[in-house]
Amino acid sequence: MTASQIASPSLVAIAQTTCQAAQQLAVLPTETKNQALEAITQALESATDQILAANMADCAAAIATGIPKALYKRLELDEDKLRSAITGVRDVAQLSDPVGVVQIHRQLDDGLILKRITCPLGVLGIIFEARPDAAIQISSLAIKSGNGVILKGGAEAVRSCEAIVQAIHQGLAQTAIKPAVTQLLTTREQTLELLQMEQFVDLIIPRGSNSFVRFVQENTRIPVLGHAEGICHLYVDKAADLEQAVAIAVDAKTQYPAACNAIETLLVHQAIASDFLPRVAAALQARDVELRGDELTREILDILEAKAVDWVTEYSDLILSIKVVDSLEAAIEHINTYGSGHTDAIVTEDSTAAATFLAQVNAAGVYHNCSTRFSDGFRYGFGAEVGISTQKLSPRGPVGLEGLVTYKYQLFGTGHVAATYTGANARSFAHKDLE
Amino acid sequence: MTASQIASPSLVAIAQTTCQAAQQLAVLPTETKNQALEAITQALESATDQILAANMADCAAAIATGIPKALYKRLELDEDKLRSAITGVRDVAQLSDPVGVVQIHRQLDDGLILKRITCPLGVLGIIFEARPDAAIQISSLAIKSGNGVILKGGAEAVRSCEAIVQAIHQGLAQTAIKPAVTQLLTTREQTLELLQMEQFVDLIIPRGSNSFVRFVQENTRIPVLGHAEGICHLYVDKAADLEQAVAIAVDAKTQYPAACNAIETLLVHQAIASDFLPRVAAALQARDVELRGDELTREILDILEAKAVDWVTEYSDLILSIKVVDSLEAAIEHINTYGSGHTDAIVTEDSTAAATFLAQVNAAGVYHNCSTRFSDGFRYGFGAEVGISTQKLSPRGPVGLEGLVTYKYQLFGTGHVAATYTGANARSFAHKDLE
Repeated sequence: MTASQIASPSLVAIAQTTCQAAQQLAVLPTETKNQALEAITQALESATDQILAANMADCAAAIATGIPKALYKRLELDEDKLRSAITGVRDVAQLSDPVGVVQIHRQLDDGLILKRITCPLGVLGIIFEARPDAAIQISSLAIKSGNGVILKGGAEAVRSCEAIVQAIHQGLAQTAIKPAVTQLLTTREQTLELLQMEQFVDLIIPRGSNSFVRFVQENTRIPVLGHAEGICHLYVDKAADLEQAVAIAVDAKTQYPAACNAIETLLVHQAIASDFLPRVAAALQARDVELRGDELTREILDILEAKAVDWVTEYSDLILSIKVVDSLEAAIEHINTYGSGHTDAIVTEDSTAAATFLAQVNAAGVYHNCSTRFSDGFRYGFGAEVGISTQKLSPRGPVGLEGLVTYKYQLFGTGHVAATYTGANARSFAHKDLE
Repeated sequence: MTASQIASPSLVAIAQTTCQAAQQLAVLPTETKNQALEAITQALESATDQILAANMADCAAAIATGIPKALYKRLELDEDKLRSAITGVRDVAQLSDPVGVVQIHRQLDDGLILKRITCPLGVLGIIFEARPDAAIQISSLAIKSGNGVILKGGAEAVRSCEAIVQAIHQGLAQTAIKPAVTQLLTTREQTLELLQMEQFVDLIIPRGSNSFVRFVQENTRIPVLGHAEGICHLYVDKAADLEQAVAIAVDAKTQYPAACNAIETLLVHQAIASDFLPRVAAALQARDVELRGDELTREILDILEAKAVDWVTEYSDLILSIKVVDSLEAAIEHINTYGSGHTDAIVTEDSTAAATFLAQVNAAGVYHNCSTRFSDGFRYGFGAEVGISTQKLSPRGPVGLEGLVTYKYQLFGTGHVAATYTGANARSFAHKDLE
């Protein structure tokens, strides 16, 4: 099945144009890409009034349809928020270029040189919620990594996104990069078509609710960077420093409960349950956390009952399920059964228990004596975060700019043929790594 | 949808057992894995008579059903071939352990240390044709990389594979590794079920015909390592050394025409076509290569006509399609339109043309002045090859043992919480890379 059979001619044309523009962008040097990012920055600054006006129109329309408050806050773009997003473009220009990094440089034989070198993926498809500043950040990350990008923002932000992409196009028009590297789709139908365009789109990054990400994952054959759920656990071992464990539990649950790296379940070793549970419960309840416990927990705490569904629920809210386990192994098994492979932590002074937990828990992040909230590209020092992946294969965990590139093998010879290296008088390969 | 709804109870039980055994294997040190490989080597040596007898029974049954000669040659296991496969297990023991490699070691702050460290994937599903020595090679690569493996060999090789896996189990029974890490499926129905077991299987590696690999790719949500097609090109530029170009064309087409890295199409710049084509045609026809040309080629050579289907056909045989192009750009466009992203080469003395070709051709391997036949894990110096991937995302190209591992982020603290690094008096991260 070719894309022309399944997508509208207009979207195929858009995708082809993006591919062509991206192919030219792919070979540009770092400095040219950084100049383009500066041109975008200035164009966005010049278009501030138009962008804010477009956003006010989006906001007015959203209020008229009764948008929920949390969504409205993401949609709304005041001057500070816009300025901060524009500053973010200059920050992206400062990041190391992920393209052209030589990962392998090896002499296979005299005059036969192998290089594995990073290169752009091609075209990214980014589907995000009604959050206009995301269009600015994503476009700049795409250009820095040498990729074309087809954006589809939430419907409520369509005017804001159009104004932003128009400014980006105006900025790029002054540079060596074709404006067509950045495209904006505006209808819901186009989102579905985009997911079928594996001929033109190399990576889909969905940003939105768990159910939306799952929908994308289940409805495309294009690789998807992202995660549907963040069901993170904190296990407090029998050898834990209990004061430390209380502080980490409070941070991991309450510091930003809507984050994917916040914990949803607290596992407590039974040997310290009667001592630890009242202390952690007091600290959490003081911060308005609703607690739900299994039977053993409820023998110690007077709280709601945790049902089966609680172990597989990402509350994204001030709610925490608690379970008492009889061993480290039981904690690991619970996590590997119900977790989402995002980030799980152990608190213990027992280094053997910690090592076992870190080795056997199957998650992108496995932590010892610290909060799960550190699971984040910026905190890891990646400079930017394009997504967090909970798949087992690489890229896994928080993904920086390196998640937007791939690599190819270049082989340089002077007439070398394989026959030289086979048969009775076969010549041997040198396989000597070079600087 | 859970696996228990779609797979037979027996296969679920097998997969669960493999998962558990693999979890224990995952944390074993290199030496223990190498000892297990030595135990397997000895067990296979001891079982040589039984394995050869089982293979003779397979061969007899295959002959009775009229197996094609090429398939028979792969099925047949004589003493030499078996000995060579057993030697291969010792070779795998010599390879570097891909597990436990520290890729990032970074101090985020005082006492807060991040490590990105390689770890096994979990369980591999390997579906291969009736080629019993593959079971030996694959099992040893899986153990070295700390993974469980569920094998399904071609039906014709079932007795041979059973004898091999039985010997592997006997070898493992003497070691710290549970024999259940290696499982053998024997029915065709189980193959289909295996493809649905994303809950237990982390990577599928199909080894077989193009159509079989494509079937696997289209019928599983488990990541697939492999490639359906190898449609490789050689482009002879106007600035080519024509003698070199003839030698490379002959090697790339005839040295092993059934290989995926053999060329299927020769692209020739029109400026040198009338000089080059007769020379290359004579050399190829002397080696019994059937040539099929486009219109411009046939003005110079008296050969069959290349039709549209020829540009998308992997002949895997002594057949070559030839097209005359009017520019480097036309050659790149042809390759990016009809190629399979495997390996494509340019012959030219023009370094700018070479650089453009290597940058713009979208393939795992892009070669200058050498044969496409070098695209191979052993030739690249990987020590082993678990597959060649033509997807854009990593792993791409020939994949060694590193393709069987992933990584996780380990974070070590002493009570660190995220709140310390946010808000008005936020502490800064150090982000200092350590040795």
